[in-house]
Amino acid sequence: MGNDLFDNLMKTYDRQLDYSGINGERIAKRLYELSEIGFTSDGGVRRPGFSNEEKSAKQLVKSWMDEAGLKVTEDGAGNVIGRLDGVNNDLPAVASGSHVDSVPNGGHFDGPVGVLAALEVASAWKEMNFIPKKPYEMIIFTDEEGSRFNSGLTGSTAMTGNEDYAKQTQMVDYNGDSFESVLQAYGSSLQGFKEAKRDMKELEIFIEVHIEQGKKLENDDLPVGIVSGIAGPAWLEVTFTGEAGHAGNTPMNGRRDPLIAAAEFIQKVEGFPEKVSDTAVATIGKVNVSPNGINVIPQLVTLNVDIRDIYKDTRDELLQLIIQEAEHIAGNREISINVKENTKIQPVPIKKELQNKLANSISKYGLEPAYIPSGAGHDAMNLGMHIPVAMLFVRSKDGISHNPKEWSTLNDIVTTIHVLKDCVEGVMEE
Amino acid sequence: MGNDLFDNLMKTYDRQLDYSGINGERIAKRLYELSEIGFTSDGGVRRPGFSNEEKSAKQLVKSWMDEAGLKVTEDGAGNVIGRLDGVNNDLPAVASGSHVDSVPNGGHFDGPVGVLAALEVASAWKEMNFIPKKPYEMIIFTDEEGSRFNSGLTGSTAMTGNEDYAKQTQMVDYNGDSFESVLQAYGSSLQGFKEAKRDMKELEIFIEVHIEQGKKLENDDLPVGIVSGIAGPAWLEVTFTGEAGHAGNTPMNGRRDPLIAAAEFIQKVEGFPEKVSDTAVATIGKVNVSPNGINVIPQLVTLNVDIRDIYKDTRDELLQLIIQEAEHIAGNREISINVKENTKIQPVPIKKELQNKLANSISKYGLEPAYIPSGAGHDAMNLGMHIPVAMLFVRSKDGISHNPKEWSTLNDIVTTIHVLKDCVEGVMEE
Repeated sequence: MGNDLFDNLMKTYDRQLDYSGINGERIAKRLYELSEIGFTSDGGVRRPGFSNEEKSAKQLVKSWMDEAGLKVTEDGAGNVIGRLDGVNNDLPAVASGSHVDSVPNGGHFDGPVGVLAALEVASAWKEMNFIPKKPYEMIIFTDEEGSRFNSGLTGSTAMTGNEDYAKQTQMVDYNGDSFESVLQAYGSSLQGFKEAKRDMKELEIFIEVHIEQGKKLENDDLPVGIVSGIAGPAWLEVTFTGEAGHAGNTPMNGRRDPLIAAAEFIQKVEGFPEKVSDTAVATIGKVNVSPNGINVIPQLVTLNVDIRDIYKDTRDELLQLIIQEAEHIAGNREISINVKENTKIQPVPIKKELQNKLANSISKYGLEPAYIPSGAGHDAMNLGMHIPVAMLFVRSKDGISHNPKEWSTLNDIVTTIHVLKDCVEGVMEE
Repeated sequence: MGNDLFDNLMKTYDRQLDYSGINGERIAKRLYELSEIGFTSDGGVRRPGFSNEEKSAKQLVKSWMDEAGLKVTEDGAGNVIGRLDGVNNDLPAVASGSHVDSVPNGGHFDGPVGVLAALEVASAWKEMNFIPKKPYEMIIFTDEEGSRFNSGLTGSTAMTGNEDYAKQTQMVDYNGDSFESVLQAYGSSLQGFKEAKRDMKELEIFIEVHIEQGKKLENDDLPVGIVSGIAGPAWLEVTFTGEAGHAGNTPMNGRRDPLIAAAEFIQKVEGFPEKVSDTAVATIGKVNVSPNGINVIPQLVTLNVDIRDIYKDTRDELLQLIIQEAEHIAGNREISINVKENTKIQPVPIKKELQNKLANSISKYGLEPAYIPSGAGHDAMNLGMHIPVAMLFVRSKDGISHNPKEWSTLNDIVTTIHVLKDCVEGVMEE
């Protein structure tokens, strides 16, 4: 499969969006050049964290950062930071950025769009000879997707010092290599990784542009949306244990079938999110039945439940409702139950005041502000535990992501960059 | 877990049951030696049809058949036949037997008890220098449980020529291997499988001993019972297909989650059997979810439904109710559905005259004859479509089967073998 990303982006591009120093063709060219690094046979991309491909992609963006007049450094976790001095450099910086790594066969927009948006703001300023009042930073976080170690947000975790250091250093990658040896092969060290932690007071705010990975903007026919909060997932493993038996010789009323309890639970869970909030979701994606024989009443059924909301209170309320229901159903059916919490990440709220700022910027372009909860995690989540964060979503075709078919139009990307730039300039003036 | 099957069997054994050449310790030893083949970590057994374990188990029994003076052959379906010449070998043979394969984590009695009972009759005769008037056959049927291809009674189906040959050859096993390649790996071929069909006029009658897999004998405090009819199972494979999506970014009301349709179906199926008869049962023992990822809304869910009754009319009525419900639920939820009938076996009646013969033998041992419908399918079912069949059930502790906890006492097993031997000898005299 040939790479016709550039042509496809430009085909429907409206050049009237080129103003204030923002240049669609430059963005399309850069997206294309990044897509070439790790391009897969079915048109996707493979750039795992700490790989040669991720490194090359960062090298390429660094060269563009140089062009845009940013002072480029890289920390010991592999995060690339480009700094532009402002009028008053004693003030904390306004920051934007994203990542250039990908899932094993990902698309060309998840990550790069946010990196190139942050870069385009600086490029546009350079073209317009604009000097912001405060310093500006663009950041490329390393290994966001986590396909290397099955554990994402590595770069932003290091920068914010949010890591469980003991756990981090015990990780083993898909080749069986230790975290330390991967760092060394990359050109860093455990010590360097530790030193990537910075004083978050150096940043005033972080605003990330990302593709939506959902269909809300498409359904609302809008190019750009405001993230209302970043959901923190809680993962439950619920095991119902009953009594196995022969499917033919066990009368219906002599059974303790854990699958029927599990089925009742699955049905009930569907109705719970709307009880706690508009943005909550709960999903049972993984089911294992044992012994899983056609003519055997199951002995046990394990369900994995993924529970998310952008508000901690309602997420935890939902978690409790679900656990109580599981216990209630099991009790009624003489089924034993075991519930484990495997993961519990704090949701990150986005301040109403920041959402309003983005809404203001969006309104300037004659667009309706739409508010979308982010169900997926992002580097902004780590930063949001220390400083104010905001996010803009770009419309995603069919909501597809982590897939070669991922697509956002250049018009939507450029419109979003105008909104980002306007908002950043607003914050610079405060 | 260590294997203390032999000790546990012998612990409560009453050696007064050793007479007429029948030897309880020999049976316990053989049950133990079979249990060692495929012994699982929690004390059960795994011997799928056509596996190395099933093959080894057959090899072991063959060596005992040699000792008992049987002439051993194996047909192209993997059925083992041991023949003992009688006084008049032009007459059809009296036959008994069962199987040595198991469900994925089964017990040590389902199958082996019937095989060793048939063998013990011949061993006892050898010890007593008894030569029957008619020829005697003991048969080990291959792949009775059907855990290999999700379709049981493979050996008896081949022997009786009851198979749908086109369907049989399209089957794929749990490794994704074709029926033909499994046969080849086993040492046979499609042609050999076809040639396993024999002229059923060669057999006068087939009498199978099997554990009850239910609690009726335990409730009645009886060691052995007479089967009044064999329920015919119908096996459905129901696939619900919806739309996969990100668990975090897909709002609850934008989902087409096939697992929730499957859950509604599982719950509904539980209530249907009592609508058609007192003896009907329906079980969903096997569930496969794809892609089965914690944070992915499922794309498809496949359920296997096992539907049984001893009466054909009500069994078929239940089958229809279940198919209609699956279609109804799928329609309501915009889920696509595919329903396949993998197995549909006629319930088999057992002649009153044969039941009376068994009752006579049982009465000789001072026991009450009890009559029990068999909910489970057995190889006797396939044979029953061509020749008279009868079955004896051995009491099962707590009615548990297809489970490592499966248990029958050696006293009950030996008592049942006495009844079998008496009945077979009676038929030999007719």
